[in-house]
Amino acid sequence: MGQFTKNMAADEVPLCSVSISDPFWDRQIELVQSVVIPYQWEVLNDRVPEAEPSHAIMNLKIAAGIEKGDFNGFFFQDTDLYKWLEAVAYSLTIKEDKELEKLADDAIELIGKAQCEDGYLNTFVQIREPEKRFTNLEECHELYTAGHMIEAGVAYYQATGKKAFLDIVSRFADYIDSRFGVEEGKIHGYDGHQEVELALVRLYKATGEERYRKLAKYFLDARGTEPFYLDEEWEKRGKISYWTQKEISAPKGRAAYFQAHKPVREQTEAVGHAVRQVYMLTGMADIASLYGEEAMKNACVTLWNNIVKKQMYITGGIGSTGAGEAFTYDYDLPNDTIYSETCASIGLIFFAQRMLLMENNRCYSDVIEKALFNVIMSSMAKDGKHYFYVNPLEVEPKASRKSPIKGHVKPVRQKWFGCACCPPNLARLLTSLRGYIYTASEDTLYIHQYIGSEVTAKLNSKEVKASITSEYPWDETVTIRLHSIEAENYKVAVRIPGWCRKAELTVDGEAIDLSSCMENGYAVLSRRWSKEAVLILTLSMPVEEMQANPNVRNDLGKVAIQRGPLVYCLEEVDNGANLPAISLAKDPDFTVKKEEILDGILSISAKGVREEEAGWEDALYLPYSRKTKDVTLKAVPYYSWGNRGEGEMLVWIRKEI
Amino acid sequence: MGQFTKNMAADEVPLCSVSISDPFWDRQIELVQSVVIPYQWEVLNDRVPEAEPSHAIMNLKIAAGIEKGDFNGFFFQDTDLYKWLEAVAYSLTIKEDKELEKLADDAIELIGKAQCEDGYLNTFVQIREPEKRFTNLEECHELYTAGHMIEAGVAYYQATGKKAFLDIVSRFADYIDSRFGVEEGKIHGYDGHQEVELALVRLYKATGEERYRKLAKYFLDARGTEPFYLDEEWEKRGKISYWTQKEISAPKGRAAYFQAHKPVREQTEAVGHAVRQVYMLTGMADIASLYGEEAMKNACVTLWNNIVKKQMYITGGIGSTGAGEAFTYDYDLPNDTIYSETCASIGLIFFAQRMLLMENNRCYSDVIEKALFNVIMSSMAKDGKHYFYVNPLEVEPKASRKSPIKGHVKPVRQKWFGCACCPPNLARLLTSLRGYIYTASEDTLYIHQYIGSEVTAKLNSKEVKASITSEYPWDETVTIRLHSIEAENYKVAVRIPGWCRKAELTVDGEAIDLSSCMENGYAVLSRRWSKEAVLILTLSMPVEEMQANPNVRNDLGKVAIQRGPLVYCLEEVDNGANLPAISLAKDPDFTVKKEEILDGILSISAKGVREEEAGWEDALYLPYSRKTKDVTLKAVPYYSWGNRGEGEMLVWIRKEI
Repeated sequence: MGQFTKNMAADEVPLCSVSISDPFWDRQIELVQSVVIPYQWEVLNDRVPEAEPSHAIMNLKIAAGIEKGDFNGFFFQDTDLYKWLEAVAYSLTIKEDKELEKLADDAIELIGKAQCEDGYLNTFVQIREPEKRFTNLEECHELYTAGHMIEAGVAYYQATGKKAFLDIVSRFADYIDSRFGVEEGKIHGYDGHQEVELALVRLYKATGEERYRKLAKYFLDARGTEPFYLDEEWEKRGKISYWTQKEISAPKGRAAYFQAHKPVREQTEAVGHAVRQVYMLTGMADIASLYGEEAMKNACVTLWNNIVKKQMYITGGIGSTGAGEAFTYDYDLPNDTIYSETCASIGLIFFAQRMLLMENNRCYSDVIEKALFNVIMSSMAKDGKHYFYVNPLEVEPKASRKSPIKGHVKPVRQKWFGCACCPPNLARLLTSLRGYIYTASEDTLYIHQYIGSEVTAKLNSKEVKASITSEYPWDETVTIRLHSIEAENYKVAVRIPGWCRKAELTVDGEAIDLSSCMENGYAVLSRRWSKEAVLILTLSMPVEEMQANPNVRNDLGKVAIQRGPLVYCLEEVDNGANLPAISLAKDPDFTVKKEEILDGILSISAKGVREEEAGWEDALYLPYSRKTKDVTLKAVPYYSWGNRGEGEMLVWIRKEI
Repeated sequence: MGQFTKNMAADEVPLCSVSISDPFWDRQIELVQSVVIPYQWEVLNDRVPEAEPSHAIMNLKIAAGIEKGDFNGFFFQDTDLYKWLEAVAYSLTIKEDKELEKLADDAIELIGKAQCEDGYLNTFVQIREPEKRFTNLEECHELYTAGHMIEAGVAYYQATGKKAFLDIVSRFADYIDSRFGVEEGKIHGYDGHQEVELALVRLYKATGEERYRKLAKYFLDARGTEPFYLDEEWEKRGKISYWTQKEISAPKGRAAYFQAHKPVREQTEAVGHAVRQVYMLTGMADIASLYGEEAMKNACVTLWNNIVKKQMYITGGIGSTGAGEAFTYDYDLPNDTIYSETCASIGLIFFAQRMLLMENNRCYSDVIEKALFNVIMSSMAKDGKHYFYVNPLEVEPKASRKSPIKGHVKPVRQKWFGCACCPPNLARLLTSLRGYIYTASEDTLYIHQYIGSEVTAKLNSKEVKASITSEYPWDETVTIRLHSIEAENYKVAVRIPGWCRKAELTVDGEAIDLSSCMENGYAVLSRRWSKEAVLILTLSMPVEEMQANPNVRNDLGKVAIQRGPLVYCLEEVDNGANLPAISLAKDPDFTVKKEEILDGILSISAKGVREEEAGWEDALYLPYSRKTKDVTLKAVPYYSWGNRGEGEMLVWIRKEI
């Protein structure tokens, strides 16, 4: 098996070594802490009258024998609590909160009580069909649920130092290890929804227990091999589907839906359920990294390229269809029947981060930034209780109500759902956002994201502190301060974003020749740093018109407005109805303006034209005779759309030529 | 109830008074006679190895007690045979065929044997659930099936003078009349799929039996009234759906799907299943006409306008979504997820024809022409055995295979289907095409369609013969010859198509001032005609670029090429792949050329530009910098697409400005 050598690779910086203080992101993180986490706790306990009851705590109590009753909710309902606990863990590393920690400890105690003697834990199976453990891996998400539990257990241990939850999840992981593997007598299967793979790697890293790493690798190795396990399973369970409780046809045709159509190392195109695809890739990148395995790394790179070069929206969204929340095919990026699930972009960020750890390259950190500043920022409303699960690039409220293929595209953020995957996923991402800003190797501090923060890292065994201050993404200037007790030799690698056509960097006032020090999109500065050093990075942020590859038929003849990492959009409230009737002038003469609305965004005004409706009366088709009027367009950041009532929204705008 | 006065109304000319001889349409009609009708007979008898067995004849034999076995096929499978018999009837009026007539007579004898004592006939119900007559009108199409039987019976009687089939269908109609109506003890319902209404009107016209007219009116009057019959029925049948054999929720929310959401006279927007909508409107126009009822006529006009001014494709296709084969909402006309079923355009032609009979106006005959020359001509392949059921305006074969929302859009004509509604519907339309060319009132011969033909009509009680010769739709010149034994006073009304911006008309070489004689889009010539007169109509046919109302967001910034009644399209075979990357030049400099391919079409060449793929390498998004190359485009008539292998097709083309 080919081995690869890591190139400019680095490690994660522990969350406890980073703190964020950023005018843009603080609000989001604070919202998660003050609203989302407490609100979700109420939801988990079925105490929110306007939300669908979660049943998650009640299911655990029933499984623990504390309460009587039937299981309620989706079969993966337990994950609501696990994702909450993971977010709580990260939150506690930001800010001590004894009360919250007590709630979490109690919930963990309950989890412990619900766990079976042998380590197994899944309230759906325990309450409904205890004899049917691991008999419907294709549909019932037992290992997916286990994965979220393991992630939470690791995070809680790393945040608090308390081992109770880690022990619980380790016992479950041990049980899974006793049941799955290539050995005779074990189940030769894997889950229909990937997640346990990446979780086991985290558990391995937290505990050093080799078993978990091997088990993660086993799940990836087994996937998509012949004989096809999910076929065998389907035969064994009488061909009955959980969803319909009826006999269904063989799952083989659907194997691509959960990326089991080929061995993972042979997969070359992102297909099927988007979240499963990127969760799997996250695990694959982990395993490639841990084992230095070239074939696995190559598969990751191939699939990464397929996603970001053929199947990703300009916002960092992925998943072109609501049918199966899935990828479709290269260059199929419809803007109005899109899926682009929030969770899928979160998974893409996970995957990108793992790739970055394997090979430092801005192609990964650029995508993290793109997804963060567009899809991720967009998905949560300012009240923390309304969400976009689907993140469209074109919305017409009438179509959302009336078109059978656009019903999933909502014109306003929706209340916390029955299947509430996105809000808690977002909560754990935002509370661990610190983890995406820096990485560090033996001698180099990598700075990936321009989020106001401080970090403490060991470089060449010496402690170095660094801080970022900026008005990013509005302002072009980022200030980086370095501090060590003595002058020290180390390297600092500063990402020059891919969107930036003109960057300037000074160190203590002295201009750096960037062309001489660029490596994979990073300016790498190696020197003996004085105790205090100030880097000023100036990232030119003119308004730009972006176009899509001509194979993207939905975007032909159109442009998207972008400034820095932010994609902009038109909204009906600023530009009137029927937004597609607008086009951007040949010379749009952009004006950037600071606004009071939407928490102080920069809006972009431009010259445009609008097709005239006058003269049409009630004709549907007429000989061509273009009649337009000049208009002034106003674009706002994509992430801020849908906060001023229901209306149309449009990212890709026709361009006058 | 308000009465209206017919304005310039006319009657149908009997099919036996018209014969077609036309270089464009002869081939299609001949194909139906030589291939479609014989082939369908084989299909009906389950003798075509490559086609799904129809079971239609076998079902009848089982119902008649001649064979043993179970019912097979859709519950409306009988209609396959009825539509075939209707087409045979029309075909026999074109050309005597003793052998074919014998097959039809035998089939009719079999139908008679299968008919119940009391007149009822439906093989699905008789074989499967004889005690359940009319208990699931919502789903099971019993009256729809009866309607097709009645239409066939009337057509066969009118074609052959033989009464056997007319008697069979009259007995069934009498039975239906005994079971349905407002009287106590009768069923106060109506069918989920409209058709029997228009059929009963035909039966009334053929027999003069008032009962049938009243029954047709009853079905329309009852529809959509409260209490909602289909709710009651659903309760009575235990809420079980035929399709799932499971309990379903109340059908009320679905009432609009079969246009039962409001009383028919109060409906203002075309909704739901497109074929049902236009079949219903055909019956409504019939009843409005027969009763001179203004409210019913107004509803017809309102719905007509809604369809053709808000919900019709430029090809004459209707039905914007495959979900329910249905209308969606005003101006929602997606080109690539379209339905535009062939049967729906056939139904639209039926409706237009009935409107034309109520008020002569080219708005109706224009739409008939548009649908005939585009959707209808498109739907059948040259072998008569492959069909488009869905008639898209944009096709990408890869999308048809891979996109979950485009699977119904086929890039090549498909074999005769299991649910074979379109081919026999097309067969009956084409064999009765003569019926759409002329109508006549007491003193006026109306000429609607420029299809080479001869007609004999009585005008002011005198026999007048007229003939049309032309190379339409290729050539601008139409020659109309009039002949009477003596010079006579009568009127001739000649349609000036709505697409024509410059028409000239001469009578015996003398130019007519059209502005002085136009009525509702027809040049009405009233004079004492000599025994022989020659009208030369010249309809200027420059190539035109058409645009859609700016509310049609899918067509913004795009044009469609049209010449005369023909819509044109681009095909991959002529223009390369990725057709949306092409745009039409500001000055396209159109060239029309006679081609040898595709049975001698006129192709249209034009200047265009194509977005360059060079320079993109594998980038997905780049700053805007337009790179195009000049190309020469070649467009072919829409109806001829898909005859040269699988490839992309595009009607709406981006326009350079």
